[in-house]
Amino acid sequence: MAASVLEVCRQARQAADVMRELNTAAKDTVLAGIADALDGGRGRLKAANVADLESARRSGVSQTLLDRLTLTDARITAMVRAIRTVVDLPDPAGQVIRGTARPNGLLIEQVREPLGVIAVIYEARPNVTADVTALCLKSGNAAVLRGSSVAARTNAAIADIVAEVLRGQDRVPVDAVQLIRDHSREAVIELLSAAEYVDLLVPRGGPGLLATVREHAKVPVVIDGDGNCHVYVDASAEPAMATAIVVNAKTSRPSVCNAAETLLVHADIAASWLPDVLGELRGRGVIVRGDERTRKIWPDAEPATEADWATEYLDLVLAVRVVDRLDDALEHIARYGTRNSEAIVTRDIAAARRFARAVDSGSVFVNASTRFSDGGEFGYGLEIGVSTQKLHARGPMGLEALTCVKNVTWGDGQIRT
Amino acid sequence: MAASVLEVCRQARQAADVMRELNTAAKDTVLAGIADALDGGRGRLKAANVADLESARRSGVSQTLLDRLTLTDARITAMVRAIRTVVDLPDPAGQVIRGTARPNGLLIEQVREPLGVIAVIYEARPNVTADVTALCLKSGNAAVLRGSSVAARTNAAIADIVAEVLRGQDRVPVDAVQLIRDHSREAVIELLSAAEYVDLLVPRGGPGLLATVREHAKVPVVIDGDGNCHVYVDASAEPAMATAIVVNAKTSRPSVCNAAETLLVHADIAASWLPDVLGELRGRGVIVRGDERTRKIWPDAEPATEADWATEYLDLVLAVRVVDRLDDALEHIARYGTRNSEAIVTRDIAAARRFARAVDSGSVFVNASTRFSDGGEFGYGLEIGVSTQKLHARGPMGLEALTCVKNVTWGDGQIRT
Repeated sequence: MAASVLEVCRQARQAADVMRELNTAAKDTVLAGIADALDGGRGRLKAANVADLESARRSGVSQTLLDRLTLTDARITAMVRAIRTVVDLPDPAGQVIRGTARPNGLLIEQVREPLGVIAVIYEARPNVTADVTALCLKSGNAAVLRGSSVAARTNAAIADIVAEVLRGQDRVPVDAVQLIRDHSREAVIELLSAAEYVDLLVPRGGPGLLATVREHAKVPVVIDGDGNCHVYVDASAEPAMATAIVVNAKTSRPSVCNAAETLLVHADIAASWLPDVLGELRGRGVIVRGDERTRKIWPDAEPATEADWATEYLDLVLAVRVVDRLDDALEHIARYGTRNSEAIVTRDIAAARRFARAVDSGSVFVNASTRFSDGGEFGYGLEIGVSTQKLHARGPMGLEALTCVKNVTWGDGQIRT
Repeated sequence: MAASVLEVCRQARQAADVMRELNTAAKDTVLAGIADALDGGRGRLKAANVADLESARRSGVSQTLLDRLTLTDARITAMVRAIRTVVDLPDPAGQVIRGTARPNGLLIEQVREPLGVIAVIYEARPNVTADVTALCLKSGNAAVLRGSSVAARTNAAIADIVAEVLRGQDRVPVDAVQLIRDHSREAVIELLSAAEYVDLLVPRGGPGLLATVREHAKVPVVIDGDGNCHVYVDASAEPAMATAIVVNAKTSRPSVCNAAETLLVHADIAASWLPDVLGELRGRGVIVRGDERTRKIWPDAEPATEADWATEYLDLVLAVRVVDRLDDALEHIARYGTRNSEAIVTRDIAAARRFARAVDSGSVFVNASTRFSDGGEFGYGLEIGVSTQKLHARGPMGLEALTCVKNVTWGDGQIRT
């Protein structure tokens, strides 16, 4: 009989209280053991994954989902390497980020420490099971994992191997990493209600999950939300650079949240440059939905409706709008954006500085693709998600996002007068 | 006709978009003007306050509340001085807290910026109106203030003077500081629902307000919650230091959230030391509620019930428990504490380090009074509240807590491969 979700969370809380006091070496040793065990457990992982893939094919899921779900040898290698990267990262727990000696002699230190229990609800990507395990253990947290039913067997195989490693040692508690194997919506709601035990929940998923989270969450949440990302090509943009960035942002991996969905282009460059980029995109199978001014320049474009500006296609579709001024681009982004990632292509330093300051998104790029909005690309090793909210963490979330900062004050008898 | 709460928030949002791009000098000039105007407007402030005090007395509010509400000349001076202190603090907006050059040449900067619109619901302390104004303007945010009906006239007088200063210049928008003059519960609920406009709400208040917030909040919230604070006196404590700290933590200002509510004392020192401290506290009018072991040593103590351990008295009452080990003290704090502020008195460095690491509270004090858990004492100039949650900000919240961190990446055409 499986433990209830609340019981899983309660056990995680107890494990977290032990984790909080572990030194880095103990955590790193266990993580290295997990990497080795997953590396050596390829056969089990692939067998479980084949079973998941067969069920998924039978139930007719999309090719995109099948691709996400597939665990090849190369992906297992990448997963193992990612854990080893996390072993090599500095431990955020215990870092003193600031220290002040006050006039009365008090020494106030602001010290990072683990949040406690981190829960993650995630899509059908088996590597997330390993990634979250690595990030949580390294930062001294306990992890409660709730993956997709589609990846149930693969996730279970990963979690079983992790559990075997944990049972083989006595520093990191076995309950520090737990997989919820109940895939019902009720289980999600139970997890969302476990405010007594869960310190942070990161929901990764579509609008359905986020609506459930907004309705039921009693636990603290950092949302990994949508990415309706924009590229703004300024009048002064270097045309070849603009084309390369737009093509990369749209086509290098259209199904992810940092892919571009809307191109905003300054009127002064639109007539000369749009045919170049849209021709290149057409060659890569991208469908363009343009406003009237775009369609005058590029009659191939389908007419864009109001809904297009607000849509995260996650597909080879791009909305295109011609704007007269940087301010119009900023207004468009403020109105339709999802505060994820936006880019400007420009040679004008004033425009770049203005864009960087005025755009209210987690990540802003000047002369670079939005696709760099990623924990690995930011040097975090791995990410637990990409925050689209402002409080606590913004943009790609690595180890630091799994910590909080405690004020530790050292005195020698000070009292307040 | 007063604007609806939602309309106030919408105007604040527009003001915040202007504030976000203001330089420090512009904000400081306006803040200095506000300090001068409040200083010169003492007559108006005191007249409004007298009217509030008369109404409050007629409606029979407590002496504690009357004391909070009273605006003396000395308090106006302190309020004005506090604003000038904030002028002198560094502007958190624009601070680059980290910068990384990536192997591909991308330069990733993590830059503090204003959150946007900050709403605060607060108790009948008029200085909060000025404090929040100063903290929000300095950090580049717009403020939506909702004070207590008891302080309605005093808050309005402060807000009117602020508005006059804002109308006399053209950098900081007039709508950057707005006071909600509707004191109904519906107004609070409307504010809690304004997720489209409000980036952070800080509720300061009792259990009733917090329950309303938990039920209705759609906006992001950082809770300024209870303070059931503990002092643990270790076996190795220096007795005179322990007495001074406990007496200060309990009696220097019993009505505030950083006052101590429970004393935990190690059995090895209890018999010799408790009579000293409890005698001293009795002399200051403190009622003691003790467990059985305490009452054997100090028969004067009333018997403590389970409810006492969980109570924030905010009064001259202290719960006392004798424990056999540091671990028992840690367990007691984990079970009954509110994650606000706890102190240990000890000469044992191992006990101090253990306590500092294991206690899961925003502020931990070694050989100092819990009363130092305060933005002013921490060097923040002022505080907007004391967070009792872990996400975003923990403990006293100064200017930094009103910012978020954006990732600004500078490239020269990088695309992701």
